[in-house]
Amino acid sequence: MSYASQKLAEEKVFKDPVHRYIHVRDQVIWDLIGAKEFQRLRRIRQLGTTYLVFHGAEHSRFNHSLGVYEIVRRIVDDSFKNRPEWDESERLVVLCAALLHDLGHGPFSHAFENVFALDHEEFTRAILIGDTEVNEILKRVGQDFPQKVADVIAKTYSNKQVVSLISSQIDADRMDYLQRDAYYTGVSYGHFDMERILRVMRPREDQVVIKSSGMHAVEDYIMSRYQMYWQVYFHPVSRSAEVILTKILHRAKALSESGYDFEQQPTHFKSFFDGTFTLKEYLALDEGVLLTYFQLWITEKDSILADLCDRFVNRKLFQYIEFDLAKDYMKMRELEVLFKKAGIDPEYYLVFDSSSDLPYDFYRPGEEGERIPIQLLMQNGEIRELSRESEIVEAISGKRRTDHKLYFPEDFLTEDGKKKALKKQILELLT
Amino acid sequence: MSYASQKLAEEKVFKDPVHRYIHVRDQVIWDLIGAKEFQRLRRIRQLGTTYLVFHGAEHSRFNHSLGVYEIVRRIVDDSFKNRPEWDESERLVVLCAALLHDLGHGPFSHAFENVFALDHEEFTRAILIGDTEVNEILKRVGQDFPQKVADVIAKTYSNKQVVSLISSQIDADRMDYLQRDAYYTGVSYGHFDMERILRVMRPREDQVVIKSSGMHAVEDYIMSRYQMYWQVYFHPVSRSAEVILTKILHRAKALSESGYDFEQQPTHFKSFFDGTFTLKEYLALDEGVLLTYFQLWITEKDSILADLCDRFVNRKLFQYIEFDLAKDYMKMRELEVLFKKAGIDPEYYLVFDSSSDLPYDFYRPGEEGERIPIQLLMQNGEIRELSRESEIVEAISGKRRTDHKLYFPEDFLTEDGKKKALKKQILELLT
Amino acid sequence: MSYASQKLAEEKVFKDPVHRYIHVRDQVIWDLIGAKEFQRLRRIRQLGTTYLVFHGAEHSRFNHSLGVYEIVRRIVDDSFKNRPEWDESERLVVLCAALLHDLGHGPFSHAFENVFALDHEEFTRAILIGDTEVNEILKRVGQDFPQKVADVIAKTYSNKQVVSLISSQIDADRMDYLQRDAYYTGVSYGHFDMERILRVMRPREDQVVIKSSGMHAVEDYIMSRYQMYWQVYFHPVSRSAEVILTKILHRAKALSESGYDFEQQPTHFKSFFDGTFTLKEYLALDEGVLLTYFQLWITEKDSILADLCDRFVNRKLFQYIEFDLAKDYMKMRELEVLFKKAGIDPEYYLVFDSSSDLPYDFYRPGEEGERIPIQLLMQNGEIRELSRESEIVEAISGKRRTDHKLYFPEDFLTEDGKKKALKKQILELLT
Amino acid sequence: MSYASQKLAEEKVFKDPVHRYIHVRDQVIWDLIGAKEFQRLRRIRQLGTTYLVFHGAEHSRFNHSLGVYEIVRRIVDDSFKNRPEWDESERLVVLCAALLHDLGHGPFSHAFENVFALDHEEFTRAILIGDTEVNEILKRVGQDFPQKVADVIAKTYSNKQVVSLISSQIDADRMDYLQRDAYYTGVSYGHFDMERILRVMRPREDQVVIKSSGMHAVEDYIMSRYQMYWQVYFHPVSRSAEVILTKILHRAKALSESGYDFEQQPTHFKSFFDGTFTLKEYLALDEGVLLTYFQLWITEKDSILADLCDRFVNRKLFQYIEFDLAKDYMKMRELEVLFKKAGIDPEYYLVFDSSSDLPYDFYRPGEEGERIPIQLLMQNGEIRELSRESEIVEAISGKRRTDHKLYFPEDFLTEDGKKKALKKQILELLT
Repeated sequence: MSYASQKLAEEKVFKDPVHRYIHVRDQVIWDLIGAKEFQRLRRIRQLGTTYLVFHGAEHSRFNHSLGVYEIVRRIVDDSFKNRPEWDESERLVVLCAALLHDLGHGPFSHAFENVFALDHEEFTRAILIGDTEVNEILKRVGQDFPQKVADVIAKTYSNKQVVSLISSQIDADRMDYLQRDAYYTGVSYGHFDMERILRVMRPREDQVVIKSSGMHAVEDYIMSRYQMYWQVYFHPVSRSAEVILTKILHRAKALSESGYDFEQQPTHFKSFFDGTFTLKEYLALDEGVLLTYFQLWITEKDSILADLCDRFVNRKLFQYIEFDLAKDYMKMRELEVLFKKAGIDPEYYLVFDSSSDLPYDFYRPGEEGERIPIQLLMQNGEIRELSRESEIVEAISGKRRTDHKLYFPEDFLTEDGKKKALKKQILELLT
Repeated sequence: MSYASQKLAEEKVFKDPVHRYIHVRDQVIWDLIGAKEFQRLRRIRQLGTTYLVFHGAEHSRFNHSLGVYEIVRRIVDDSFKNRPEWDESERLVVLCAALLHDLGHGPFSHAFENVFALDHEEFTRAILIGDTEVNEILKRVGQDFPQKVADVIAKTYSNKQVVSLISSQIDADRMDYLQRDAYYTGVSYGHFDMERILRVMRPREDQVVIKSSGMHAVEDYIMSRYQMYWQVYFHPVSRSAEVILTKILHRAKALSESGYDFEQQPTHFKSFFDGTFTLKEYLALDEGVLLTYFQLWITEKDSILADLCDRFVNRKLFQYIEFDLAKDYMKMRELEVLFKKAGIDPEYYLVFDSSSDLPYDFYRPGEEGERIPIQLLMQNGEIRELSRESEIVEAISGKRRTDHKLYFPEDFLTEDGKKKALKKQILELLT
Repeated sequence: MSYASQKLAEEKVFKDPVHRYIHVRDQVIWDLIGAKEFQRLRRIRQLGTTYLVFHGAEHSRFNHSLGVYEIVRRIVDDSFKNRPEWDESERLVVLCAALLHDLGHGPFSHAFENVFALDHEEFTRAILIGDTEVNEILKRVGQDFPQKVADVIAKTYSNKQVVSLISSQIDADRMDYLQRDAYYTGVSYGHFDMERILRVMRPREDQVVIKSSGMHAVEDYIMSRYQMYWQVYFHPVSRSAEVILTKILHRAKALSESGYDFEQQPTHFKSFFDGTFTLKEYLALDEGVLLTYFQLWITEKDSILADLCDRFVNRKLFQYIEFDLAKDYMKMRELEVLFKKAGIDPEYYLVFDSSSDLPYDFYRPGEEGERIPIQLLMQNGEIRELSRESEIVEAISGKRRTDHKLYFPEDFLTEDGKKKALKKQILELLT
Repeated sequence: MSYASQKLAEEKVFKDPVHRYIHVRDQVIWDLIGAKEFQRLRRIRQLGTTYLVFHGAEHSRFNHSLGVYEIVRRIVDDSFKNRPEWDESERLVVLCAALLHDLGHGPFSHAFENVFALDHEEFTRAILIGDTEVNEILKRVGQDFPQKVADVIAKTYSNKQVVSLISSQIDADRMDYLQRDAYYTGVSYGHFDMERILRVMRPREDQVVIKSSGMHAVEDYIMSRYQMYWQVYFHPVSRSAEVILTKILHRAKALSESGYDFEQQPTHFKSFFDGTFTLKEYLALDEGVLLTYFQLWITEKDSILADLCDRFVNRKLFQYIEFDLAKDYMKMRELEVLFKKAGIDPEYYLVFDSSSDLPYDFYRPGEEGERIPIQLLMQNGEIRELSRESEIVEAISGKRRTDHKLYFPEDFLTEDGKKKALKKQILELLT
């Protein structure tokens, strides 16, 4: 029997709090889960710094990846099974893509990618194609199989049904993380009737559509998404931690470039500072490694690096205020000047941050080519884009929402000591 | 106003998936949560290696500590409030003890304590009494307050009601972890009607009793406990990981003592190897630090250390069989000989492990002095020990149950290469 | 001690699946629950005919009434307690109003009130003021106390905080039924973070406001409400059953007025047919009584009454189509003519029904005097109406939504027999 | 295509709070659900008088019957599918038996059967075989099909796997009702990991076995069952209501036999009083009908009948004490004499009731032929009875537990009026 069609002697299950059980029958899937690049996802949290606000959010990307796999498995093995529009030979590639779609994530992805101008999707591809255990397993299915999986994740795969299941406006990725993140944080948002949505998903020529009888479950899903973004993902306190993290990496890089003599050398980071890193070096990083450095750096001589690390490790975060940079640009300049006068480096301690990269017009069709809208399959066989049918979705579509915050170390400004008047003046400007 | 009675301007809440919300009104509690020794608990998993079997079990001791605090808060602020048998002035000490009872846990506690002959309770005490942020906060309540909290945790505190809430057969600690661990692992055990139990808890002279009308909820709690132990806590696969972890630490210590030249020096461990560690060194350890070392050691020259680290980091665990050492002692000796012949050091690769430290006769009163039995308050005012009233509890009381396993690296024995016949012989002995 | 302040020796609890426990400490509340007019609510379903679509929805108004009481109890005993803006002496009146607000509901309220032009709120008042066990209990608190409770329910009570808790856009009534109906039907809508909403409710001069930090929980509540209305409350199949029920009552009345000789006399209904009913006669009715009649009437000689009763009792409901009466008025006329030709009385068998009495502009302030909008208490102390702050709520406010259906007995039109061509013609017009 | 293999054009689902969705694809099942004898189950509560204690327990046998069907459907369509030991041609008969197994239940089954010496299983059979819509549908599958279904329910069917799924120690019936009754009452017992149990069920020659890896889930199920019996099913307050109900029926029968002139004639009951009832008369009864009579009888001249009806309808139940009839027989005699002296008829007002018909030795194999024990399939292929493997089950097996209560109208004994001393004497004897 070919490796691709090899089944485990007995189905294996993983106990999962969100989907109850994750079922594995394919030898390929089982082997991929055991690969070290996949096991590494256990050491990277799904929600980065969010655990500093919602203490339950300590779950890893390993968790989530299994969940996405399971959702896709249910779709192809239940909803799509035996439907003429679905090509059964795509089953394995979509299962692998679901399982592996987040493989390239690094520690505290958002901040890390930001500072070093990286893109986790490139790393995912590199792991799939490169010299890794995952690649070795995928190649056993077929020489071109790793590339196929990579194409699905890059959304360039020819069968758009397959792409849709992994990345569209209502894909398995989003359906898993909304429920999972709600479960672990304990918030009451994030619940929707996934079982119903799965039941009404249908393959159609070059897309996946939803029978219109499931529209309300989809509305509920979109509202969940909206609430999760603003209540959890963009929470200003976890962004505060992320701001500090970013500044730590910036500072370490700057120190390294300036020839600063670290007591604890930034061994793992060197190649990232100068852009010469290899895939192997990337894979050596995880959140435990970063936190180990940060703990050691608390006692570095450089007071900025030491202070920022202390803040991150011991959760002494920056305070924040609403701030409209466009409107208050002059105030920002003034604050920078005052910060410097007060001996607080504004480059590290006065940080403007916007969360607006997730508008909710993503449910409008067209325009941004890569965003696959949600299509309803009407009773008469017609296909209509969701926002044309749903008043609620129509209402929130196309309205970009942004949240601007200015972060700063309030404790520096209230502590006793010299320059009290100046600090008081700054504080007044900030409140 | 005294620091002890200082309240926050507005109650603060933590969103918690198990108790919905954790409520904090006392300034002392708020400050303790912010202390770095308490924040450190975020870096230590509640269930050690269990996440390698139940992937959801990635929650930290920080989580659990808040949960225990919340349960005790509900008891003293709801059930005990205004009852003449309860001394309201004990409120703060019991809340602090609840919050801080696990403060001394180290990374992968069980294995770590085992190898270095440590006791996390001693560290808890050391942190409470020593030169720490926690101690500094507690002292603001009163010079003797840190000691009082330590006494509660040591069970030597004079008011036995207070001790009972933190450590008895049905204390806040157990009630939180059973529910919490069930929640994060996703198993269906671990549920019981805590709200009912809290409602029927009553302070009595030198103990806490349960109104007999709540007996069935208590039975349910005990059955939960029993199931959680055998289904989750003693799961043979997480014990496999623990066995490997123990062996890593043993090997590193042995190598260090033998003067082995580490490529990656065991800096953080040195003082533990020679027993000279300080509290500060202990607090510098967490699971991220350990895993960072283990990842680096995968490329050490010493093949045993390298292999064990690879196994732990990349989850290539030992296989196991049921094994009765008493009965099969000669077989064990034979296996050791054969292992040596096959070039596999039995000291590291043939490990017998028993889980029997948790019998279920813990519900018998008396004898083991420190175990506080569950007492029922009957309708006629009489107090009776639980197992005298409950048939189910009576049935499972006093029956020690033990699980013996023998762990070994099956992959070593099945891989191709030399000594195949010998390895085959070993495998046959093992199955 | 006065009856009003009399407490039970020990708190009593009811196990409730929605709120876990319902707590009763006041003797007045305990006595009211035992009153026969309150016990009668056990015999009236909360959701009328909905159980014919969602089989779980068999719960009674007794259930819901206890739930509303419990929510109000938590508000006044937790959130409002000790706040200067709240007058503690209003506690008992608001608890009683919460418990008793639905007391006047009759069997299958909507249809029954519709046919006999009744108003359940008048009956609630009549029960409170009239010669009943409930009135007798309330009078023990004070001679004017029954009237006070009635005033709260009539929204004419002077303290508008009290009125708001029972009937505003976010009152205890709605919060209970959304959750309860979701629980019993099993739908995934209807969940929101009530605990959070209760925590941020605040009494203000003449209203109840919500701290703006709870806005998102309120948004979630409003979305739940929207979904519950369209997914559950206005479900076309339960409306089909309601249409039939209405027609049964109409037919029985018409027959009675025409002197028809019932085999099973409509004894319980007589006084409703001629409008001479007393409160006692009203209270003698419940859903078991109605269904008993309907079952007996299945064998009446009048074929229309017999058929309609058979349909209702044995769930052989009408089919339906979307129908725009304004646009298709002529088609309706044509259908009526054809129905008559086919020997099917259109008065009973061709029924147009609209559900639009619940727009979602109810969240607009002002205009309709009696609708109390949701007010947010901003951090700066300002009060702002919800839809000015929430984009989602703003988006769905003020958009009346209506659903028009035409109901008919499809089985009559497809059965074999005479006039097949005519029936086929009708069916084609209807699809 | 034969009727037996006819599928619905599109799968139909029922929303169910316990199993999320109930899936129907077979035309036969769909038709059976629509039959009037099945719809009648909507008018009979699953838990009889329990709703008078647990107000949530208002769900009907219709609910439960769908649930049992769904569980069996999952077993045969998932777990058993394609296993050589399972005969696929048994699929429809077992699904029908699951759906219809409770068809013969009457209103408040226990009490009703008790008074009139009936057996609901006989009625189930009569409905399956007799002149009913259900029979007509089943016959379309095959002339002998109704009898086959009846045989499964009577446990005389030749294929014991089929019988086991419907009635064994771990059948679909029990698995549904434990979860369902827990859900509606809101108690925390009744939860177990059914999904796991279903996954490990296996057909074996003449029985259904459970893979030993699922033993702990089975233990949990058995503990649930134990708790549900003593916490919910045998609750003394619902037994109080049942005692009164029994006495109402007794009294009405006695009056009827004595020629008493009822104001409201017991029309529906006549044939039950004299034993001449037909199936049609039995099917005309439901809980709404009974309650309608009881309400009308509250104003009968016979004071005993009137009082008992008032108690049942308005929930003025009997009080109770623990009572050991064997030991206190003389006391019982004395009480009877005193009751008579006090003018309270002990036949109706002093009732001894035992709940012991459910021992928990049902998990012992053999002896009682019809009780099918739970068999574990060990890893080595051996089959072992559960209690030999499970310490917990072993512990509670074979211990009959009984609860004896004496019920009486406490209010009669405390009310003012004549014979105060005598009544006081009685009360003292009773407490």
